[in-house]
This record gives sequence, structure tokens and C-alpha cells, in this order.
Amino acid sequence: MPSAPPASELFAAVPGRCGLPRLTAASAALTHTVQAINERGESEPVHIPAERALTVYVDRRELVTLMTLGAQPELLVLGYLRNQRLVTDAGDIESITVDWEVGAAAVKTRRGIERIAERTASRVVTTGCGQGSVFGGLMDDIASIALPPARISQSELYGLVNAIRLKESTYKSAGSVHGCALFRGSELLVFVEDVGRHNAIDTIAGWMWMQPETVQGGDKVFYTTGRLTSEMVIKSAQMGVPIVVSRSGMTQMGHTVAEQLGLCAIGRATHRRFVCYAGADRLLFQPELAG
Amino acid sequence: MPSAPPASELFAAVPGRCGLPRLTAASAALTHTVQAINERGESEPVHIPAERALTVYVDRRELVTLMTLGAQPELLVLGYLRNQRLVTDAGDIESITVDWEVGAAAVKTRRGIERIAERTASRVVTTGCGQGSVFGGLMDDIASIALPPARISQSELYGLVNAIRLKESTYKSAGSVHGCALFRGSELLVFVEDVGRHNAIDTIAGWMWMQPETVQGGDKVFYTTGRLTSEMVIKSAQMGVPIVVSRSGMTQMGHTVAEQLGLCAIGRATHRRFVCYAGADRLLFQPELAG
Repeated sequence: MPSAPPASELFAAVPGRCGLPRLTAASAALTHTVQAINERGESEPVHIPAERALTVYVDRRELVTLMTLGAQPELLVLGYLRNQRLVTDAGDIESITVDWEVGAAAVKTRRGIERIAERTASRVVTTGCGQGSVFGGLMDDIASIALPPARISQSELYGLVNAIRLKESTYKSAGSVHGCALFRGSELLVFVEDVGRHNAIDTIAGWMWMQPETVQGGDKVFYTTGRLTSEMVIKSAQMGVPIVVSRSGMTQMGHTVAEQLGLCAIGRATHRRFVCYAGADRLLFQPELAG
Repeated sequence: MPSAPPASELFAAVPGRCGLPRLTAASAALTHTVQAINERGESEPVHIPAERALTVYVDRRELVTLMTLGAQPELLVLGYLRNQRLVTDAGDIESITVDWEVGAAAVKTRRGIERIAERTASRVVTTGCGQGSVFGGLMDDIASIALPPARISQSELYGLVNAIRLKESTYKSAGSVHGCALFRGSELLVFVEDVGRHNAIDTIAGWMWMQPETVQGGDKVFYTTGRLTSEMVIKSAQMGVPIVVSRSGMTQMGHTVAEQLGLCAIGRATHRRFVCYAGADRLLFQPELAG
């Protein structure tokens, strides 16, 4: 299984390409060590994930404050704007400049964002772990989404679950983070961890916009350690990814939306076990592999 | 270990008491069965948690839409208003009427909420699983919080973890929910599950307001299945609960805030293991019990 480089390296390889936004590459420590006391009364160093406030300004107007691990803040902001549907094309953004000294991301657009005040006025607090506020209207556009006709085999699914098992760097050292990944079959394209899984998926959305040739075609699979909530399903669909896989379960609204979209939703995926909640026609079953 | 009745039953015992809000007792199915296909290609019924949109109107003004399991929607709304610090006393609310037919909670206040538009304008997307939008300014009030001088023994902590293990009804049948509980020592006072853990803690905050004599004194312990993020720590402190316990880990900002507050934060609590991240002076260690 080839190991994909982290998103920040992938991005660093292609700065300032024609038509794409210019992004800084702000970095910060991802874990932090504290002294804790265990059940035997012994003091021991424990790693905990960083959690930083990043306030996003769009053309100098304050939009939102995101709490993040801070691994790829520029891609997070780009993907956030994309997934909130505030921006419909990467080319609408001229630059994103993150400065951890002041905890700020300055977004410069080429033409401004139309009716931004009005479009960010309505508030939905979602189930999605960590997400929180998805600006209203996300559900309104479901009907307009047509997903590409991709499939995944049970063998590829097992390869994918194994690739994730080998990954999860911050999780392994500090716990308390969610991981998301984008696959082509069982090939890991990018893996992102964050304290909120909404951040992880937003970062992947940002990464996809910065890698237009890598992500062509609809043969992608989205993986998340978190639950398959309506929000995760909608975001995956918005990114044109028709198959989602999780080690966790699914909520009712996530299920309803997946069925509406014809999106394949596979949950409780660990080792050789899984359940396919919706869109089973996209999964090539190979029960002989189940062991 | 005595088993506490669910919050809805506890509430139903005390409707419309003097000075407390009148609440409806809207109920809805908590799980939903779907046909899923497992790794052997077999179709099987799988339970998934319900997930409903509940739009909150305060004096006929739309405030927010919460995605919830729907077990105790009135207490959720009450606790949401409390934890967002939009209301400082349960007596400020005259009634909360939930109607699942239309997915709406109508809150009637006695005197209105001052400057509600202004106070709900700033937006923070938190890490907290499921939370999302905590209205700005939550952090501003930390300095004013003085926590009561309560302690917990390692023996009580073990009793608490065991009580939780015996609980978790929706989790056991459907997974994909977070649980929160309020304890006095190892005595379980109330246990709440929801698709978002922010909802679970908000529901407990609402329950506490409806049970003023039960919750007198600062000898309470708050338990959550989710991570100890800054939001969970702040909400616990706002409720006057100085000890928090989680089966998960802690984020850096949660740790920083707990240390500022002198709040005892115990994580990774399973069976006999745990780590105390902060406020260890509130924990009476009994290492001989660690086994």
C-alpha cells in the first residue's frame, strides 16, 4: 500500500498555479505534552492534540472562527468556503493567508462574495462531530446533485480500511482527533486529521480544489472515522464523491439523504466487517473474502 | 448501583411548578430500523438513531435549528438557552412547547431576551462533537466563574464508570450517539443520549434547572462519552460542576481552560484505568484499587 504524503506536502509542490489561489503554508505543532496522573497515582507525560482558534476574514469582513488542530489551515479555509457553498470555484479566491501569531486567515477574493451577509445569516447546528454551524440552505441543493456512476469492490474496501489502520499519526500519539481520507479504490490520495471531523472533510475539499487533475473523474471514495451524519453525506456528495466509508455508524438523517442521492454508505467498517446502509448497487460484494 | 429514571420521567413528575417554565413532553421514536447488507452479502435489519431538525423560536423569532435524537427536546432547548447564556434563570422562561409534527420548539419568555439579535450575531464553530455554533463571548466569562470545592475519590470514580457501562440504551441498540450523565459521587442522577454530545450536555443543563432542590450543592460530577474539549469544560463550569470525566481524551484548549478554572478533568476512563489531566487536587487517589 503506497503511503500518500500529507496534504501540506502535496500542496507545497504546486504553489500559485495558474487560476488557483495562492496559499501560505502556516505550520504549528500538532500535539502538546501535558503532565497527567494515572490510576496508580503516577505522574506521566500525555500527548494531547493542539486546538487553535482560527478566525476567517473574507475581504476583511469577519466570517467565522474555526477551532482546529491546525495542520493545513489554508486548505481548511478553502474547503470551508467551498462546503458552505460561499464560493463555487477555486478561481474565485485570489489568496488565503494564515498567520498563527494572531490566529487569523485572511481570504482575498477576486470579485467578492455576493450577498455574503444574507447567505450566512441562517444558522443550523448540525449533529456532525465538531462541525456545528452549517449555514442554512445546504439541504436545499440536494436535488440538483447528480453523482457519478462509480463502484467499489469488497476487496478494495478491505484495502482502504487497512490503509487507514496504517495511518492516523496524531490519533496514535494523542488520540482525540478525527481522521478523513480520500481514496481512489484502495489507493490513499490524501489523509487529514483534525480535532473536528468537519474540519477534516473541509480540508479534503480544499485539497481537491487545489489538485484539479488528480481528482478528475468520479471514482473517489471518502473515508471518515466519524459517524455518517447528514452533514457528512451532503458534503461528500457536494464534492462529487459517491461512496462514503466509516468505522462508525450512521444517523437517520444521514441515511435518508444518502438514499435520496443514491450515495453508497458503508459503516462499521473494521477489519473484514462492515454494513452497507444505502446504495448497495455501488458495492461489488465478494462474500468469499469475509472470512 | 441504583438506576436513575430517564430525564423525561423525572421531568414529568414535576410539571408547572411555581417559578419554573411549563414544558410539553413531546416524544418521538429514538431509533429507526433500516435494512443493511453485511460483509457476507446478507441483508439484515440495523438500528440507527433518529436525527431530527428542531427549529427554536424565541418569542416567535427564529433562533437556531438543532439536530437532535429527540428524547427530551424541551429540556434540550432550555439547556441550550442556558448554556448559550441567553437566559440566566429558568424563571425567565414561561413555557417551551415542542411539536414534532412541524419540528418546532416555541419558547415564550416572561420579559423577552435583551439584545438577542446582537448577542447571537457572532459565530464560533467549536470542536465539540456535534455542537457547532456556540455564540461568541462564551470564553469571555471564564474569569468570573468560581467553582465549588468538591472532590471525588478513585472508588467513586470507578463506581461512576461502572454505572455508565450499565446504561447507554440507544447506544447499545443503535450506536452513533453520545451519552452524558450527571452524578453525585457515584450516584447517577440523570443520563442523556443524543446524536450530538453538545445536545446531551445542554439537556442536562435544562434538567438541572428544572430540579433546583436535587442539584443544590457543588458535589456534582459530569460524565461524557465524548472528548473533553474547551466547550465541554466551559459548559460544565457554567453549570457549577467542578469535575468532568470522559472515556475519551482531551484537547489542548480544553486542558488550558480546565487549568484556568481549577476544574478536575479525568479522561480515558475505562474499567480501572484513567488519566487525570488537570485539577488532580480534587481527586482522592486510591492506587491500591487500580488492580
